[in-house]
Parts: sequence; C-alpha cells; structure tokens
Amino acid sequence: MSDPTVIDMTILDSTSDDQYRVTVLGIGRMGTALGRALLAAHHRVTVWNRTPSKADDLVDMGAVRAETAAAAIAASPITIVCVADYDGVQNVLGAGSALLPGHTVVNLTTGTPEDARAMATWVTGRGADYLDGAMMAVPQSVATPSAFFLYSGSQHAFDHHRHTLDALATSHYLGEDPSAAELWDLALLGSGYAALTGFLHSLALLGTANVSPSRFVPLVSRWLSGLTEYMSELAREIESGDYSTGVSPVGMNQVAVENLTRLSEDLGIDSEVHRPLQALLGRHVAQGHGHESFSSLFKLMQKRP
Amino acid sequence: MSDPTVIDMTILDSTSDDQYRVTVLGIGRMGTALGRALLAAHHRVTVWNRTPSKADDLVDMGAVRAETAAAAIAASPITIVCVADYDGVQNVLGAGSALLPGHTVVNLTTGTPEDARAMATWVTGRGADYLDGAMMAVPQSVATPSAFFLYSGSQHAFDHHRHTLDALATSHYLGEDPSAAELWDLALLGSGYAALTGFLHSLALLGTANVSPSRFVPLVSRWLSGLTEYMSELAREIESGDYSTGVSPVGMNQVAVENLTRLSEDLGIDSEVHRPLQALLGRHVAQGHGHESFSSLFKLMQKRP
Repeated sequence: MSDPTVIDMTILDSTSDDQYRVTVLGIGRMGTALGRALLAAHHRVTVWNRTPSKADDLVDMGAVRAETAAAAIAASPITIVCVADYDGVQNVLGAGSALLPGHTVVNLTTGTPEDARAMATWVTGRGADYLDGAMMAVPQSVATPSAFFLYSGSQHAFDHHRHTLDALATSHYLGEDPSAAELWDLALLGSGYAALTGFLHSLALLGTANVSPSRFVPLVSRWLSGLTEYMSELAREIESGDYSTGVSPVGMNQVAVENLTRLSEDLGIDSEVHRPLQALLGRHVAQGHGHESFSSLFKLMQKRP
Repeated sequence: MSDPTVIDMTILDSTSDDQYRVTVLGIGRMGTALGRALLAAHHRVTVWNRTPSKADDLVDMGAVRAETAAAAIAASPITIVCVADYDGVQNVLGAGSALLPGHTVVNLTTGTPEDARAMATWVTGRGADYLDGAMMAVPQSVATPSAFFLYSGSQHAFDHHRHTLDALATSHYLGEDPSAAELWDLALLGSGYAALTGFLHSLALLGTANVSPSRFVPLVSRWLSGLTEYMSELAREIESGDYSTGVSPVGMNQVAVENLTRLSEDLGIDSEVHRPLQALLGRHVAQGHGHESFSSLFKLMQKRP
C-alpha cells in the first residue's frame, strides 16, 4: 500500500478542492437518502447506478452523474457502495482496476460477517482500504438523530473519512475485524425482530378486548425503554457468571410465560411466538436452575440443545 | 352499594384525620417496597402478613401492625393486596366480612384476566369497590420514575384513591372491565420477554466474537428505543388495514431472518428463538404477501395456524 498521507494531501485537502469528494454507487431508496445527506453536508457527490434514471433526483440536487462505475470511483477518494447484496457489490466494483491505493471503499450493503471478510480481502488485495458498514436506519431516518451506522475494518480509513461518514448518521467504529459491523448488525436486528414480533403478538392479545394498537404504543414504549436498564443488569450477571442474585428467577418467569401462552391459546391467538422461551425456561427448571436469574438462559443459547 | 360520597366524608377527609390511611396485606419484597413508598408519602400504613416478622422493617419505619387481616382491612378505607397468587388473595380476604361498603380493594397480585374478573365479582358482591392492578416494576423501582402501575375496575375508586396510588408509581387507568390490567400486563410482559429473549440470543451471537455483553447494551438500547417510533407506524398500518406502504416488506425481512438463523447455526448458537418469526414470514410469503409491510404479520397472529 502507498503512504496514505501523500494521497490525503493531494485529493482530500479541502482548501485545494473546496469540497470533500465522495462517490455513491447504488442509488436505490437508501442510496438516494445517503446522497442527499452528503449533498446537504456540502460534499461533491458523484453517483452511478445501473439504471441511470434512478439517480435523476440526486443529479437535480447537484450530484454529478458518472458514465461508468469505474469513472465514478475514480472521481473521489472514497466510494460508498449500497446495493442489494454482496454479489451486486462485486459487480459494481468490476475487476477492481479503479481501486487505487489510498482509495477507501465503504460498503454499506447488507450481508453476513463472512461476506464482509471476503470483500475486505478482495478490496485490500487491490491496494485500497476497506470499511464494512451497517446502517441502523431506514431511508427516512438517514441524517436524523435516530440513525446510527456501524463500521468495522480499516481504522485509518474510518478516522480519515469520519467527517463524511458523520454526515450520514452517528458513526460507531467496532474494530479492525471487517466482519464486526455485519455481526453487530445481525445481533441488533435479532433483538429488534424479537421485540417487534412480541409487539405484534401483544397487539393480537389486546385486540381480543378491542384495544386499538396505537393505544398500546405509549405504554409498550415506556416498558421497553425501562427494560434497557434491566439489560445492563443481565449483562453484568452474565459477565460475572453469578446468576444467584437476580430479582427475577427462572421459575417465576416460567409461570408468567405459561400464563401468557395459555391465555393466547384460550383467546385463539397464535401461541408459537413465546414457545422457544417457554422451552428454554422449562429445560432450565428441569435441570435444577429454577432459582437462577433470567440471565442464566444465556448459557442455554450458547450451544445447540 | 351505599353512597360513596358519605363514606368519603367520614373516613377520608384528611383534615379530620391528618393522614390518608391505607392497609397493605402481603409484605414480601414487593409489599415492603409498597409500604415504604406509602410511608414516604405520609400515609398512615397498617400492615398484615401471614408471617408477621416479615413486616418488622415496615413497623420500624412507622407502619402499624394489625393482629389479623380483618383488623388490618378495618383500619383503612383502602386495602392493597400483594401476595403470590389469587388463591392467596382469597385467603387473606377471608370470608370478606371486613369488606364494608365504600371500602376499596386494590389487588396488585399477578394473575390472569379471568382471575381478575372472578375476584371483582366476589369483592363487589360483598359491597366493596374493586380495582385490579398490575405493577410494571421491580421492588427497587417502586416510587421511582421508571415504575408504572396499571389499574382497571371501579373508576370511582381509582379517582378517589388516586393520591394514594400515585405514591406507588405513575398510575394508568384502563377502564371499568376489571380484567384489563391483567390483560395489558401480559401484553407488556410478552413484548418484554420477546425483547429480552432476543437480547440474550444476540449476546450469544456476539460472544462468538468475544464481544462482552455490556459493550452491546448501549447500542441495543438505542436501537430498541428507535423501534418504538417504528411501532407507531406499524400500529397505524394495522388500524388502517393498508399494508401496502410499509418501508420494510415481508420478503426483505424473510431474507434477513434467514441470514440470522443460518449464522446462528453456523456459529453453534441456539437458532430456535427466531424460528416462529421465520415460520410466519415463510407462510406469509408463500401466500403471496411478500410485498406487504412487516405489520401484516399481525393478521397471522390473530388465529391459530
């Protein structure tokens, strides 16, 4: 790899160029939101999309349309890629001949940790820096306080392009292992999916008493926000390995979850949603751990039954 | 029932008595927390517990110990019951002879909506008012901003004793149907359990990359807090019955959840937790609803498969 400091001086010094330059490949709904945020943060934005017309809005707002992906990459020291999947990333980067040393690829495409590792190897093998990213956001929330993006891979690239990345969302750097952002992304998605599935099940329960969904939202929001405090406690218990002091023992939770699934059945509501937890609680109680904290279920998650 | 206004004048007027009087039956960890909160709010607190010594701390703090449950009930216009289960409630209320007209029973014991309905019938049949309650709190959080209690049953009793109830937690009244508090309780618990189960699963995933639980907590807290905004959107979609406009279609979520369960399997982590959601998404896509919003899964929750 060349000395990145030299590259920085020539292509990034904002006094010589008046603007930070950034390229966005993949102009779907999310790519459009990213481009708009970068334009709003006074970047010179070059865009390319397989279907060129999808970039029309951004071009109207001031973005520069490149004729080819390679030309788009060559126009900026940093390329943000946001396409449907990692095969698509490979397609837009082509043979990688445009990836000069000192160039940074920020790949915001959703995939698995393994996808990210493979892509990092490929990009860095061509001399460029690689940052994998995961967007904890929807298009509408980009560049609002509720959005945050996770990054892993080259620390140098992250530090160097922080100003550009921060224009998109709050930036969290998770370490040099390029797979970390995808792993954390799936961990966050998993917690979110679980919460949302529980939420829909709760709405179905309340629907049997004609409680409208929007009436439930303020209280469930409050309840889930309060749980984050409890999550800190569970995290501490897991780290200490001491499951004896929790306020909420497995046996007590078993009773509550049984009430919940029985009521669901009685009311003709789907009762599958809470079955995995019920099974974990049942197994743990059967193995003599009924007095331990709820956090002790963590041990059962670590290995397949 | 007698005219409650007359009762109010004689036993509740704080100028004639200098203090609000309240009885607490059942002095476990939660009962102790309730009693302490009431003493702190300058109530005259009468307590009774089957094992009298468990009330020693409260007596030291200024509570009055009654010799019998009936004597405790007779000492105040309102009795708060917090025992292990509804059979226990029946035991402490005995034959109900102490339940004079105008007396209010606030039952904070955890149970099912059906338990609450039966208890309401029994208490009101003896002339007293009944409020069923559910405590969204742990003993340590009673009387702190994070605690909130749900109430259903007599609106009159709720309004009348609001000052006393507000000393325990933020009070939410859910309507005259006495079963509502238990139903909402189970709905909130269900959403909470789902979120916590997802959280433990996420910790196990991250544990494979040696990410410590407490490192995950700030981001998952932020992510779950952000989801409450999304929940409002899902609620609106369900109420409108229009599932066509959501930003997050079923088919896209199916791919993400499959990534999640496959990765879990690959890493040797429990993959059961997300199976019910995976099954719902799969069924919905198979039935041609892949383009609909995530909220459309609500329809599948309403009836057993």
